[in-house]
Amino acid sequence: MSLSAAAQDLVDLESARKEYATLRDAGLKLDLTRGKPSPEQLDLSAAILSLPGANDYVSAEGIDTRNYGGVEGLIEIREIFGKLLGIPAQQLLAAGNASLNLMHDVLVHALLTPVPGAERRWVDEEEVVFLCPSPGYDRHFALTERFGIRMVPVALTGEGPDMDEVERLVASDARIKAIWCVPKYSNPTGETYSDEVVRRLAAMPTAAPDFRILWDNAYAVHDLTDEQVPLLNVLEACAEAGNPDRVFVFASTSKITLAGAGVAFFGSSAANVAWLNKVLVKQTIGPDKVNHLRHVRFFGDADGVLAHMQKHRALLEPRFEAVYEVLEAELTGIATWTRPKGGYFVSLEVPDGCAAEVVRLAKEAGIALTPAGSAFPYGKDPRDHQIRLAPSFPSVDEVREAMRAVAVCVKLAVAEQAAAK
Amino acid sequence: MSLSAAAQDLVDLESARKEYATLRDAGLKLDLTRGKPSPEQLDLSAAILSLPGANDYVSAEGIDTRNYGGVEGLIEIREIFGKLLGIPAQQLLAAGNASLNLMHDVLVHALLTPVPGAERRWVDEEEVVFLCPSPGYDRHFALTERFGIRMVPVALTGEGPDMDEVERLVASDARIKAIWCVPKYSNPTGETYSDEVVRRLAAMPTAAPDFRILWDNAYAVHDLTDEQVPLLNVLEACAEAGNPDRVFVFASTSKITLAGAGVAFFGSSAANVAWLNKVLVKQTIGPDKVNHLRHVRFFGDADGVLAHMQKHRALLEPRFEAVYEVLEAELTGIATWTRPKGGYFVSLEVPDGCAAEVVRLAKEAGIALTPAGSAFPYGKDPRDHQIRLAPSFPSVDEVREAMRAVAVCVKLAVAEQAAAK
Repeated sequence: MSLSAAAQDLVDLESARKEYATLRDAGLKLDLTRGKPSPEQLDLSAAILSLPGANDYVSAEGIDTRNYGGVEGLIEIREIFGKLLGIPAQQLLAAGNASLNLMHDVLVHALLTPVPGAERRWVDEEEVVFLCPSPGYDRHFALTERFGIRMVPVALTGEGPDMDEVERLVASDARIKAIWCVPKYSNPTGETYSDEVVRRLAAMPTAAPDFRILWDNAYAVHDLTDEQVPLLNVLEACAEAGNPDRVFVFASTSKITLAGAGVAFFGSSAANVAWLNKVLVKQTIGPDKVNHLRHVRFFGDADGVLAHMQKHRALLEPRFEAVYEVLEAELTGIATWTRPKGGYFVSLEVPDGCAAEVVRLAKEAGIALTPAGSAFPYGKDPRDHQIRLAPSFPSVDEVREAMRAVAVCVKLAVAEQAAAK
Repeated sequence: MSLSAAAQDLVDLESARKEYATLRDAGLKLDLTRGKPSPEQLDLSAAILSLPGANDYVSAEGIDTRNYGGVEGLIEIREIFGKLLGIPAQQLLAAGNASLNLMHDVLVHALLTPVPGAERRWVDEEEVVFLCPSPGYDRHFALTERFGIRMVPVALTGEGPDMDEVERLVASDARIKAIWCVPKYSNPTGETYSDEVVRRLAAMPTAAPDFRILWDNAYAVHDLTDEQVPLLNVLEACAEAGNPDRVFVFASTSKITLAGAGVAFFGSSAANVAWLNKVLVKQTIGPDKVNHLRHVRFFGDADGVLAHMQKHRALLEPRFEAVYEVLEAELTGIATWTRPKGGYFVSLEVPDGCAAEVVRLAKEAGIALTPAGSAFPYGKDPRDHQIRLAPSFPSVDEVREAMRAVAVCVKLAVAEQAAAK
């Protein structure tokens, strides 16, 4: 986005400077950096802190969840989330407290043990490349970089990655082994992949025989409207396209129950699950099955999960509305932003070359924003224009106050840029 | 051990066959395979199943344990176990539910990121070799084998590994990157490393600049007598010897609270902890801090842990006594066995060439024993003489019954061997 002449008229350097000086003097301390649930959201799961209860530890199958064993996780929790994710429970593993950790582990195993279809371990490849639809989830990129995997950004279109570009790249380059996807209410753009995008990802010819879609379905049930935007079943799409082993699905309850003490899931084809199970039995004697049981008791069933998510929505919606309210009042014509139907983020796009300056100004005024560029591979936003806003954690009043501050910073950065030309 | 003429007189083939036939007809179904706590032991931690309680989630430092963050784990639980393990809390990380998983992860990180002092990642070495004091913990060996690391067995002496052999090997061979140690009440021999062994491990010159002691202190507080066998502080010994970064310490509450839902620990030098932390922040947003708090509330303090361990001892001692009682009555002069002062295992040594046959006979009679050889690298006991007995899980009566059955199998195997000569 380049600022139109009309928009430049909206920002006056002198008044922007005055507004910012007042803001800085106010000595705020607010944080819009991370997609953390608020304490009120965590309170929704207060019951889980005393579950399963002293005499409740035997699973429906008669397993003593307190003891060792059962590397695939408790079947009851896999059934509940299998239903929600559209994955047969037998192809869904329940693991520890963090899907990021599970993604880490799956990458480690792919590096050190050939995945089904692979000619060799990824660590034995000359070079491994991942496609990174951007802006995307910074922790995906940090994890990828940590393993020395080269990241190639791909544009997002509003209904998923630019598939012409993706198809062109994977067709000819066998070094490209994977693509990161947050397919529903994507972090940070909020978009959901269209059926056509999912089908093309599932069916596209890839030069690498061991290409994988890393499908981080982090916001599968995290609606912010009545719409419940549908997402095509990627596992079925891959199977139908004759590429049954192409996708690794990840999910977790981190933003359903407790962010630090939830349950993570891995779903895939029978062959991929068998591959992971084979290395998992060396890695651990089993996940925390008591925590699995705790979640089973808390939810009851899949409908219980959905009912619980409505309570999250009731807390989140006003925070998102507060963001839009301030953005509309203050930045119409100056910046653009998303209005996601679910998830945790608003993506704010300021005029090119202004994002880093906005974040810097905000920081000086006591407002923590995610570093500019952090939603891009290597932390580099080529246009320096995108800022991720995470309104879930602060109170509605704090969100409003923080957003007003952000608006002041955006106006000053834009005015300064215009003045410098 | 080769059977003396006197011992051979003790076993008569005909009566051994008769005894075994009777045993097999009895149709028993008993299991002495794994070091699993019994349900009664797990009941000791029943309170933990409803902790921390609905309104209890803030740590002493004011952290909301329910939310994301704090990759190093809750400071209170690190302080409690730091005291018990002799490791400053700042150098001790609290992690997920399984120390095996933590060992897996540390090996993964050493394979993929140079450890302090290393010239390169272990995955980039021509070959990596680990020393494996044997008999040892089968899951250490399975994990090592899984990563393609070559295992070299080293004899145990009753007070730790044969240090002359260890020193000779590590001094000249830079491919040797680590040694597995279960230093206290070792699995399965029950021995505790002497101060001299610990000092020699800490001080020995190694050809590899990045040599590590993998110190799995799994039974640090798991006494079966009043003696509480002391173990030298390996971290201090390494620092004093000028090799502060040499040791990775592992521990867990798996055999203190709930086997599947405990807390695992990693302790080391400041440099090693910083190395691990740096990769951990890419791997996860944090461990299950609610489970850490749950354990803090349950124990109260380090003395609480020790008091709790006395309850375990009260349940375990009669089971071990039942093992000795039957072994003494039935196998004196025929086999030898350990009488550990702590831990979970009795190591039974039968005449060379008989162990696999004993396990086979037992299986046919409905008694599950750990496969012969499983306590050795690659599952190969060169003398085919060692059997690991795990009496913790069955009831005292079942232990006695199982041991009587084992004795029958040992006598038959020995008699058959003698007859075949």
